This record gives sequence, C-alpha cells and structure tokens, in this order.
Amino acid sequence: MTRIAVINPNMSTGFTDKVGAQARRIVASGTDVIALNPQFGPASIEGYYDEAFASVGLLATMRGLENPTDKALDPKPVDGYVVACFDDTGVDAARCLTKAPVVGLCEAALRFAAIVASRFAIVTPMAVSVRPLEHLVAKYGASSQCVVRAAGVRTLDFEGENADMAYLALKTAAENCLAKDGAEAIVLGCAGMTDIADRLHAELGVPVIDGVSAAVKMIEAMGMLGLATSKAGAYASPPVKSYDGIFAEFAPVA
Amino acid sequence: MTRIAVINPNMSTGFTDKVGAQARRIVASGTDVIALNPQFGPASIEGYYDEAFASVGLLATMRGLENPTDKALDPKPVDGYVVACFDDTGVDAARCLTKAPVVGLCEAALRFAAIVASRFAIVTPMAVSVRPLEHLVAKYGASSQCVVRAAGVRTLDFEGENADMAYLALKTAAENCLAKDGAEAIVLGCAGMTDIADRLHAELGVPVIDGVSAAVKMIEAMGMLGLATSKAGAYASPPVKSYDGIFAEFAPVA
Amino acid sequence: MTRIAVINPNMSTGFTDKVGAQARRIVASGTDVIALNPQFGPASIEGYYDEAFASVGLLATMRGLENPTDKALDPKPVDGYVVACFDDTGVDAARCLTKAPVVGLCEAALRFAAIVASRFAIVTPMAVSVRPLEHLVAKYGASSQCVVRAAGVRTLDFEGENADMAYLALKTAAENCLAKDGAEAIVLGCAGMTDIADRLHAELGVPVIDGVSAAVKMIEAMGMLGLATSKAGAYASPPVKSYDGIFAEFAPVA
Amino acid sequence: MTRIAVINPNMSTGFTDKVGAQARRIVASGTDVIALNPQFGPASIEGYYDEAFASVGLLATMRGLENPTDKALDPKPVDGYVVACFDDTGVDAARCLTKAPVVGLCEAALRFAAIVASRFAIVTPMAVSVRPLEHLVAKYGASSQCVVRAAGVRTLDFEGENADMAYLALKTAAENCLAKDGAEAIVLGCAGMTDIADRLHAELGVPVIDGVSAAVKMIEAMGMLGLATSKAGAYASPPVKSYDGIFAEFAPVA
Amino acid sequence: MTRIAVINPNMSTGFTDKVGAQARRIVASGTDVIALNPQFGPASIEGYYDEAFASVGLLATMRGLENPTDKALDPKPVDGYVVACFDDTGVDAARCLTKAPVVGLCEAALRFAAIVASRFAIVTPMAVSVRPLEHLVAKYGASSQCVVRAAGVRTLDFEGENADMAYLALKTAAENCLAKDGAEAIVLGCAGMTDIADRLHAELGVPVIDGVSAAVKMIEAMGMLGLATSKAGAYASPPVKSYDGIFAEFAPVA
Amino acid sequence: MTRIAVINPNMSTGFTDKVGAQARRIVASGTDVIALNPQFGPASIEGYYDEAFASVGLLATMRGLENPTDKALDPKPVDGYVVACFDDTGVDAARCLTKAPVVGLCEAALRFAAIVASRFAIVTPMAVSVRPLEHLVAKYGASSQCVVRAAGVRTLDFEGENADMAYLALKTAAENCLAKDGAEAIVLGCAGMTDIADRLHAELGVPVIDGVSAAVKMIEAMGMLGLATSKAGAYASPPVKSYDGIFAEFAPVA
Repeated sequence: MTRIAVINPNMSTGFTDKVGAQARRIVASGTDVIALNPQFGPASIEGYYDEAFASVGLLATMRGLENPTDKALDPKPVDGYVVACFDDTGVDAARCLTKAPVVGLCEAALRFAAIVASRFAIVTPMAVSVRPLEHLVAKYGASSQCVVRAAGVRTLDFEGENADMAYLALKTAAENCLAKDGAEAIVLGCAGMTDIADRLHAELGVPVIDGVSAAVKMIEAMGMLGLATSKAGAYASPPVKSYDGIFAEFAPVA
Repeated sequence: MTRIAVINPNMSTGFTDKVGAQARRIVASGTDVIALNPQFGPASIEGYYDEAFASVGLLATMRGLENPTDKALDPKPVDGYVVACFDDTGVDAARCLTKAPVVGLCEAALRFAAIVASRFAIVTPMAVSVRPLEHLVAKYGASSQCVVRAAGVRTLDFEGENADMAYLALKTAAENCLAKDGAEAIVLGCAGMTDIADRLHAELGVPVIDGVSAAVKMIEAMGMLGLATSKAGAYASPPVKSYDGIFAEFAPVA
Repeated sequence: MTRIAVINPNMSTGFTDKVGAQARRIVASGTDVIALNPQFGPASIEGYYDEAFASVGLLATMRGLENPTDKALDPKPVDGYVVACFDDTGVDAARCLTKAPVVGLCEAALRFAAIVASRFAIVTPMAVSVRPLEHLVAKYGASSQCVVRAAGVRTLDFEGENADMAYLALKTAAENCLAKDGAEAIVLGCAGMTDIADRLHAELGVPVIDGVSAAVKMIEAMGMLGLATSKAGAYASPPVKSYDGIFAEFAPVA
Repeated sequence: MTRIAVINPNMSTGFTDKVGAQARRIVASGTDVIALNPQFGPASIEGYYDEAFASVGLLATMRGLENPTDKALDPKPVDGYVVACFDDTGVDAARCLTKAPVVGLCEAALRFAAIVASRFAIVTPMAVSVRPLEHLVAKYGASSQCVVRAAGVRTLDFEGENADMAYLALKTAAENCLAKDGAEAIVLGCAGMTDIADRLHAELGVPVIDGVSAAVKMIEAMGMLGLATSKAGAYASPPVKSYDGIFAEFAPVA
Repeated sequence: MTRIAVINPNMSTGFTDKVGAQARRIVASGTDVIALNPQFGPASIEGYYDEAFASVGLLATMRGLENPTDKALDPKPVDGYVVACFDDTGVDAARCLTKAPVVGLCEAALRFAAIVASRFAIVTPMAVSVRPLEHLVAKYGASSQCVVRAAGVRTLDFEGENADMAYLALKTAAENCLAKDGAEAIVLGCAGMTDIADRLHAELGVPVIDGVSAAVKMIEAMGMLGLATSKAGAYASPPVKSYDGIFAEFAPVA
Repeated sequence: MTRIAVINPNMSTGFTDKVGAQARRIVASGTDVIALNPQFGPASIEGYYDEAFASVGLLATMRGLENPTDKALDPKPVDGYVVACFDDTGVDAARCLTKAPVVGLCEAALRFAAIVASRFAIVTPMAVSVRPLEHLVAKYGASSQCVVRAAGVRTLDFEGENADMAYLALKTAAENCLAKDGAEAIVLGCAGMTDIADRLHAELGVPVIDGVSAAVKMIEAMGMLGLATSKAGAYASPPVKSYDGIFAEFAPVA
C-alpha cells in the first residue's frame, strides 16, 4: 500500500478536485491518493508574488500530514508528495520537511519529455510565468532542449466558460513551437490543463506531457521503491528555532 | 533626498539594528534609511524552509511601505529596497511589488566582488546554506569564478558570547579558500557578519565584501539615478485576485 | 497489462537474470517483464569500444521484439524498454526503432537522485568509464550537481568470488564522495550492482539509487500513461535504405 | 572626499566632455570627477582592432594618475576608475595597474539591468561590435538573460548632424528587442549615447540603462566603501621587466 | 612518409572514392592516403540508427589496418585516421583502438571554422541529423557560436541526377544562415558535399569549410608531429574480454 | 609555396629564434617561415598588462607584412599567421587586419589536445596567468575538459641558467595534473617551452602538446587549403578612421 499526497498549493478546490481525479485515474490499484490544498493563500499562482504565499500554504499543509496527531488527520504516513503546480512552488523547502520524496510538476514533466523527445516546449498560460519557468528549466539542466512559450490566457480560463478559447490559444502556441522551435513534444505548463492532454495529443500528433500525470506516476514509483529524501545536505530538517506571529505554529521542531 | 528601506526578513531585531546602523554609516548625507523586520516569521534564515516563511514576512513589510495609508507609516515613497539576507530571500517576488529597485545581499556582493577579484569565495555560516547559495551563484552567472564554503557555525553565533569562536571559524574557512580554491577575495555570506568585515580584511590582506554595505550602496546609487523595476515582464505587478485565510489581506490589488 | 522489456546489452546471462529478477521484484502486479540480452556482442561493457558493439546487439534484440512475426517471439507489443546498462548504450538509436518509450539506467537514476538529493555522486567500477559517464551527465544537464568516481574494480567482479572485495572498494569510494564531494546520495554506476543497493544504503545512511530499479519503475510509469516516443524529429524512424554484409538483415524498412 | 577618474579610451574630446558632464551631474556633492582621454589612439572604438590600441592609451593615462610626480598632474589619489567605453576596453589590464576599483560601462550596466529586469537587450551602434559584446556578456555570466543587437549606425553619428537619424535607428532596434526578444529593459551599448537615455526611457516606457551613469555610480559607491582591487591573483601588479621602443616608458616598475 | 587512413563508415564506394580523391588532392607530396569503407553496414548515415551500425563497420575496418597480418593488408602503420562522416561516427571508440590520432569531420571542421569566423553555421542534408549534430557541437564546446540547419534533402542526393536540386537547397539554407543567424562562415555538414565547397564559397563570398579537407589536413599535421592518442584514461585500449556470435572476431586482445 | 608568419609578440629575440627554429623544423618542404617580433613592447608576457602592450606590437608587425611597400619588406603575401604566445595575445584584433587565417598557441594546442585526450591540463609558468588562461579555455569551449595549473616559475626562466629548475617545477606540476586532475595529456602553457616537449613526453608517458608546433601545423594546413578569415562579421576590416599621436601611423585605411 503506497500513499501519495497531491497538494495543490493554490486555493482553487476546482483545481484540487481535477488533479486529484486525474491522480486517482492513473495510480496502481494499491495506491492511495490524498488531494489537498492549503487553508490560506492565493486563488491561483501566476508569477513570483503568488508563489511566495502559496509556498507557505503548501508547507503548512504538509506539516499537517507529517504530524497527524496535531491535526487529527489520517495517521497513515505519506510515501510521496506531489506539489501540483507547474512552478514547482516551494519544492526545495518541502523536501526539508519530510523523508518522503517530493516532486513538482515541472521537474517530473521535463524528465518524461526528455525520454520521448530530443527537443520540446513548455506552453504556459501567461507571459508573466515565462521567466520563472525558464529559471526552473535552467535549474533542471534542460535549457538546451526546452523552450518556454506563453499562450496569452489566464490560468483560471481553463475552467469555465472561457475554456474553449483558452484551449485554442494553447493549441496555437503549441503548433508554433512545433513549427518554429523544433519542438518534438509539448509539455503542458499548468496543473489546470491536465484534462486536455489527450485532446491536444490527438490533434497535434506528438507526445503531450501532462505534469500532473508525470509527477504522480514518478512519485508513486519512488514511493514504491522506498526512496527517501537525503537528510545529509541541503534537504536536512530545518534547524530548531522560534517563529513569531502568525507563523509561530510553523516553527521547526526536533 | 533618497529614501532606502533595508528589510531584514528574519525576526531578530538585533540583526535589524546592526544592518540599519551599518547602512546609516555608509550612505550619503542626503539619504534616509529605514531599517525594518517583519512582524511574523523565523528568528533566523538557515536553509530553504526558513526562507519560504521569511519571504512572506518580507512582502508583508514591503506592502506596508508601498501603501502607507493602510499602515499609518511614513508617507514618503521608498526609492530602493535592500533585502538584508544573503539568501536573497523573496527578491524576485519583491520586485513584482514595487517600482523601486530591489536587491539582495548576495547579488550586490557578487557584483562588487567581481570588480575587485577574478575569483572569490562566499563563506557562509552553516553547511545547509551551501547549496541554496550555489543555486544563487549560478542564477547570477558567477559559477565559474565563485565557490561557496561553510564555516560550520550557527548564524546567531555571530551575536553574543560565541562571537569570538564564530569569527575564528569564519576566518579559518576564509583562509582555506585563499589557499586551496584560488580565491582572491572573500564575500561574507550572512547579513549578521557586517561588523566583522574590516577586521577580517585587516587580518587576511585581501578584499572582504560585506553584502549589507554592497547592497545599500548599490541600491542608493540606483535610487539616485531614478532607475525603476521594469513592469514589462517577469516583474510585472501581480495579477489581481483573491487570497484567503491568514493571507487575505495580502491579495494583489489594482 | 503493461509489458516491459529489459535488455541487457552485454552477453552475461548472469547479469540478465539478475536485472530481470530485480525488475520482476519491483513492478506492479499487472506488469509483465521480459529480460533479454543480445545473441552476439561483448561479455561486459567497459568503455567506448565495448559500447559500440553492444549497441548493435541491443538494436538487433529490439527489432526481434518490434517485429515478432520475423522472429517467432511473443506477439504482444512492448510498452516500454529499459536499456539495462549504466552507459545508456545505444539509447538514442533505440528510440528511433520503436514508438514505446526507452530509457537507460543512467538517465533514470539521475532523475530520481535529483529528487532526493541536491548533490550526488555516481560510483562506477572502472576508471575507463568515468569520462563516458561524465559526458552522459553533461548530456542530461546534471553536471552542476553530480560527480563521477571510480571504485577501481572490474564490472564482472561484482559477481563471483571477488564480490566482497568489489563491494568494499565501492563502499570506500562512496564514503569519499560523501565526505569530500558534498554528495548527499549515491548512484550505483553499473547494472551489476543492483543487488547491493539495500546493503549500501543501510551502511551509509544516505539514499542509494540503483539504476535498474529507477529505470524499470520509470518506464513502467510511462508505459502505463501511454507515453510514446516522438517521431517528429531526432527519434524519427530510420529512413529506408539498404544495409550490406552481416548487417543486411538490420536495414530499416518502411 | 571621493575622487573618480572617468577615462574615455578614444580620442574624441567631445565624448570625453559628454561623459564627464554626465558623471558630474550624478555624483554626490562630495565627489570629485576627473574626465580624461589618452594622448594617442583611435578616434572611436568599433571592434577588436580599435580596442587593442585604445587599451594602451587607457593604461598610459592611468599611469599618469597613479604616478602623478612623473606627470605633474594633481597629486590627490584616485578612489575609483571608470573605463568609459562599452567594450570594457582594457579593464582587466587596468585592474593590474591600481589598487582602486576599476569598472567598464558594460559590466556596470549589466549589473543594474539585472536588478530591474529579468531579461534585457544591449543595443549597440555597429554590427561589428555584436560579437565582442556577446563575449563580454558571456564573461559576465549574463548570456541567458541578455541579447545584443546593432542599430546599424556609426558610433560618431550620435554626435553632429546625423544624431536624429542615429536616435531613430536606435529606437527602432530597441523596440524590436522588446517585441521579439522578450527584453524588459534596454541597455545603451555605447558611451556616446549617455545623453539620450532619458528620452528613450520616456518614449519606450521601460528602464533604459546608460552605462556611464551605472559605472560612475557603482565605482563611486565602491570608492566610498574603500573597496580595493585584490592583488592576490589575476590582478596582481605586473611583474617588473623592461619594455622597449615607444613603450619603454610604460614598463612595470616596483 | 606519413600515412593517413580515411575511412568512410558507410557502404557507398562512390563516397569513398570522392573523399579519397579529395584527400589525395590536398595532402603533401610525402603523404600516403588510404581510403576505405567497411565490408558491412548502411548505405548512408542519416541519424542515430544508421550511426550505431556504421560504428561497428568503422571499428572492424580499423582493426584490419592496426593488425595487418590478420588481414593481409599493407603492413605499414597508419599515422592518423579520419572518420569520413560528419556525425563523427564511432570516433571515441576508434580512439581506444589505436595509438594514432583519430578525428571526425565535424570536430575538425568546427576547429577550422572557429579560426576564420566568430559565428558560423553547419548546413546538413536532413532534419533528422540536426539534433545529433547539435549534441556534437555541444560536446565540442561550440554551442555559443554555431547553429545547425537542415537543407531538407537526402544525403545521397548530392550524387546523381538530383545533385543540382540538392545544391540549390543547400545554398538557400546557407544564405538563410548568413542573413538570419549571423553566421560568418558555412560548414558543410556531410562528407558527400566535399566537391561543392569551392562553388559555394565562390557564390556566397564567405568561407566554406569542408570537413573532409579539414580533417585530412588536421590529422596529417598531427601525424607529422608524431602526436599519439593518450592511453591514460578514456581512450585506453579496451580491456581484454570475450565477444560472442558475429562479433566474436572483434574481441579486444592484449 | 605556402608562407607562414610566426610572430612572437614579446621583445625576446631568443624566444623568436626558438619558435622560428621549431617552426622550420616541422613545416613541409614547400613552406616558407618568417619569424618576427615587434620593434617595441614588453620583454615577456605575464598577465593582462603585458598583454595589452604586446597586442599593439603584434598588430604593428602584421601591418608591415600586410602592406609591404610601406615597410620595404618581402612583397610575397602571407598565407597564415601564428601568434606565438600562449595567451593568444591580440588574436581577435589580428583577424580583423588580414584575410589570412590567424591562430594563437592556446587555441591550436587545445584543439590537438582534445583529439588525443578526453581530459587534459595546461601547465603555465606563473600563477598570474592562470585566470587569463581559464578565460581563454572558456572562450574556446573547453572548460569541461581542461584545467590550468601554474608551475610557479618565471617565463624567462626557461632560458638560461635556471632552465633545469624551471623544467623540474614544470614536470612536478604536470605530474600532479595526471595524478589529481585526471589529465590524460599535458599542454605546455608558454611558447618558451617548445623545446622541452619531447623530453617531458618521454618522461611522463602521455601526450605533451606544444602550442608552437600545433599552431604552425594548423595554420600551415589552413593556408594550404586557402581558407580565409571571414570579413562578414566580427573580423571585418576595421572601419576607416583617424588615430592620433604615437599611433597615428596605425590608423585603419581603406
């Protein structure tokens, strides 16, 4: 029995439900999925400012799962965490908080993309995310094979009445990547697009990598193997100290 | 009249006072310095986890300065911000929040170091900070000329009764960088070391760059020139949206 | 039902059995594993020369699986291939030959390692493999977080009477990586070490990543998701042409 | 009292006056500015050949300031040098010649640009300067965030009757960088453009960084802090030796 | 007397004759040229799959020259090898097999191009070769000054009735590189283009580097100097072991 | 008949004679060698300051060869230039001055080294040259396979009574590179070492690359092929303009 926690770091329960449903659809029969979002924070994550606040919400949510007696949650331990945001919001900090492996959508999607394509493109909703994603791509060592392009739509447009328009904008951006950037596959640069991967793949004829699916399956695999986050260096448990004010309860403890 | 805000993102008022005093000591006569720290968050910043919480405290503090009528603070606008932490905690997000230029200690110190030395070393208190700083060094494009080493002491040791021991550990680490890494200058990898730069410089005989001084003078220079953060891309103002829970008051507004 | 082919590109049936057994031990209940090696080629792969010959054996073996009527093999299609060699022998060429995803041990292990550790080391048997592996690490974009070290033993020493000596040499090399290179985890740089991962992990106290396990679980995950190799660029099917002599039967066909 | 020497390495006294005036306009009241150019060398610097000759003129001029008794110049020491050319002509050699900090326009401008923009463009007059500037950008570690484009005009066109045409060509090139390269700010790639920064900023609506202003303020800041060039490595004083012929007087002395 | 072996790793004797003729045309009077191709393998090399098979043919051919008593070939030793394919097929493995220096067309052409141009372009026949060549360019450290473009023709089209059409497609691609990529010189990305270098140079007015000529002259120079491949690391002789099946005769021997 | 000019950019006629003799010893019978040094400049080149002056001497010498009627020198054109200094002093500027190909010792030596070794080391006399050479290695794209070490002796020590001591220091430094840096070959980092390559090779047992020999043979090869420096970009002829003072005679002309 493997238990995976999929944490959407923004406050959209619609997103949380969507990514949870997708996760449950693809895990093995023996895998348990918890899908959660924080109890405070931004409605969506578009750029650095939202990301800073969402990181804290993510960490607070993980603390609840790591120390279940405090929070009256399910006492069974989590074997792996997915940070269900394509900005990989707070992933490094999250790794300090648990022995379970933690992965974000971008990292997982880039790894799967590199296996099925020599060159590929991330298509993300808004232009404001392009540079943060380029920094992630550089951090993950994929700059020489991955470009980042924006579709020019809001993240939340993929839900609700603008969904068709958003899809078309995304598809057009993806087609440009194939034609002009030499991309051989498309990576969906937002958790909210998880349900359009199949349609886009059918219409474009190239692999379309959904970060939610990639991250869930990768962390499930690692959880099954029992791989744990190293505590020997950068991901060591945070040194014990006091936190003040509204963050007092989040202080690292021994 | 140029107004500089120096924000220490941790809760140590001792640190805040120290960096404020250093800032005031080095600015031009026409420059006004405000030194602040958040009203909530960690006592010090050692690694990714502390950094995530400190980022939010930093942003909350900056909002108070940017929208002074809300907070009954001084109404004079800020011409430049220093994030007084060597991890450059939250700097990218901070740039989204203001038109004034924003710099962290690491970025400023690396720039000054590269002018006076061809190869140099950052010496930081704890090993847990080495990888985060190496990522910063890579982000700033200085990997080929800068190594990061740890002295093996706690950040807070530089204040109080362990200060002598901490200084000696730092000096030993710095000497090793000069002898074995080919460093030609030393960068102090923590805001809390600002008052030992002169002593270390005198004892080592090579340039010692204190990030507080570097950042304050650099942002003062940019403020005097009237340089503003670009709103045309990654540092655009955060899109308007709702934030929930304890973060509701920090939602981006038009 | 997902079918995974694990191809050991050298002629050691001992290796093939070992990696096959490890693969079967870790896959989900619905996953079928075929473990094979070529019918011609080198007894082990140590350096560039062996690799060139082993690549052809690998491709010949894959052709048998891709075109089962020619070879009277099992007609069920393969959903994913593992090239069970840490040199990722022939992986790029293999991707041209099939729509199923293909991964080598090194690529998969590096991806898992980067999730559980900020910096890590590959420990490989012989010095002659260090530079080929460094080139792989660079190709996979991991040079800034991964060093490659040799234990100074032959690959085949991990089987048979020298196994204890080989293990000790490996462990010593790994300990040096932790102490001197800042490694936070160890990657086993040879398929033949798959059965010592648990022991080494227990004795070192840091994550030990076995490439066989990583590659099998990763390709199983991708097979389950139905991800296919892109045929839009570098991994397009080989253009039809004639091959002569002993390679005549391996000519690309439409 | 801080004394800054701004050395224009070409022979255009018009340029020298212009950069001197700009420097005096922006320094603090306690800062003394000397603006000089060599007594021999090229009329402007366009490409590698001009640069080689201009470097020697720069060094000769600096020697006069460093050893004032020889030259009957003002005996007050210089606290910082600006090499007022965007090619950073001779900067490394200049650092060997003095303990004061030395910076070129390109290095200073890139550092300020990186603080106010995530991605930016250098616009330089002639195409022949593009590759030399790209090499500088790479040396300064900014290749991933900075492109270099040429306006297609001569450097000297920014003075005199062609100035309007030159300005328009520059503005058009800058607009293309904003539209097509994702630039969020413009860096003026020539000392001779220092007086058009405000106009271009007003018309483009993004930050425009003038290297003269950036370098003067940065070196003034470093001079005020008392930061000195390290003599421990690449910028050590030149070993004593003889020089012959027209360069005899420039031989390094103890 | 210097003896150079030029090995075309594909089965086209037309190519072999062409590159042999070109080699003989350019070597010094005291240099002996042998032009050979394998006795088995693909008719041409277009992408990774062909390359894997051609590598083995190359190595088999070299063994014949290195151990002439086995093969009844000329007993005079070879002073340098040219792998006459622009993919540098099997070059690393070939270096393990001989003490003579070995170079491929791509490596040699890039080195000559970098001497006569600051930025240049490889024009190759088919799109399927672009990524393999980009990987070579990265391996050789030339990514910042070299782009790879495809003319959209088959390799074999440069011989026979389609030769005019192939030439025109190549020329058009080259012109685009000059106009849009800032290339200052063109590198011919296929051994089969060796006879069109002069015409293209005459029509484009920029240097055109033919890999055959570059590699032959470079290896002739190294052979004359007596430079030998190092056996101290990655290019050590392959460890002795058994090979099975159709590769049995190629097993490394002491 | 190919004519090669070997220009030693320093004033040591001893060095000039030595490199000239070595050049003549290795060129083909039909190749004519001119060995020259400037008529003004430093006695040796050790670091950035010497280099700046030596560059001008080099260019002045080349002008004499390119415009022989002015200088009453031999009217036969030069087919290729070697800048006989391992710092590649002034090479970019030199390429602007001629259509003949121009190469420095470092670039040529790195290219030959990369053909015979996967990893190698430059051993240079003085520590002050390490960073300039590291910048060259980075410019030539070889940072991942080449380290630079200093022997701790003066350049001129390789001539005269200290020659034995200098040789021993060099050999010790080279041995350390083999043992600790994984170097498989040694590159001699100074023109003055050209006559000790054979001895060092014999004593170390690995390839020793002498830059003089590498550059002379490479430029001879390029001259024979008729390869010319591109005038389409960075190496275009310098724009016509006036030079003043002692440099008046070096002004670019049409």
